[in-house]
Amino acid sequence: MTTSDEVFMARALEAAQFAAQHDDVPVGCVLVRDSAIIAVGENRREIDHDATAHAELVALRALSHDEPSWRLSDVTAYVTLEPCVMCAGALLNARVARVVIAAMDEKAGAVGSRYNLLADPRLFHEPELEFGVLATQSAQLLQTFFLERRA
Amino acid sequence: MTTSDEVFMARALEAAQFAAQHDDVPVGCVLVRDSAIIAVGENRREIDHDATAHAELVALRALSHDEPSWRLSDVTAYVTLEPCVMCAGALLNARVARVVIAAMDEKAGAVGSRYNLLADPRLFHEPELEFGVLATQSAQLLQTFFLERRA
Repeated sequence: MTTSDEVFMARALEAAQFAAQHDDVPVGCVLVRDSAIIAVGENRREIDHDATAHAELVALRALSHDEPSWRLSDVTAYVTLEPCVMCAGALLNARVARVVIAAMDEKAGAVGSRYNLLADPRLFHEPELEFGVLATQSAQLLQTFFLERRA
Repeated sequence: MTTSDEVFMARALEAAQFAAQHDDVPVGCVLVRDSAIIAVGENRREIDHDATAHAELVALRALSHDEPSWRLSDVTAYVTLEPCVMCAGALLNARVARVVIAAMDEKAGAVGSRYNLLADPRLFHEPELEFGVLATQSAQLLQTFFLERRA
């Protein structure tokens, strides 16, 4: 973990807070190249009526318009929650260099919890992985969101 | 397998042929509700510079604008190639009722080949599955595409 990892994860947490404002589970994602943010996404499943609109996919799609190729071999993805199967697969497909994760998702996480999809030598890509960056902040944001909705 | 399964898969194969016309690997997807096609998608990875633009996700995204919810519990997805990790995850996330598959993908398939993500009781959804519908036609389309590009 580096100081800049915390800076970028803090920006992903801001995106997550924006998701909560439109009643989506607060998860955010930031894509970084050469120490610069090139795309930001927040979970938009409810507001977009789109099961594929998780933060990671929203960020990847936003980026694609400006990119010359679908290959993002020089990009780091910062995600506030352990990616699900779909999002882990999207990060694999995009060949991102590195994935930095805040909180884990025991129920549906696919990067260590339910599956280990980003560390499977049988598949075509294995990004560098980093865990636990601002994990407490992310977990608290999620907990507050669910507690408020139950109340 | 029913006659209508073949009819819908034939439409998915037409979408796959359209992908080949813009130099994308020929894979297609059709979403069906109450015996009516409600969305069609073809692989657009190369033309859109978007690693997430597989046929399944293109179809799911096209649909979302018109849907009241992200839940597609009454929808069948017809796919000409066994879904990858990302696409299997997307079909799970959307809670589709049934997935009908033509050809298998031994290298990267996540519905029987590399993983069995749509038949995992630990995850939150298990759609009905059907295999081998117009499998030969789909495999031939893919083979022709790769042979032509190698020549």
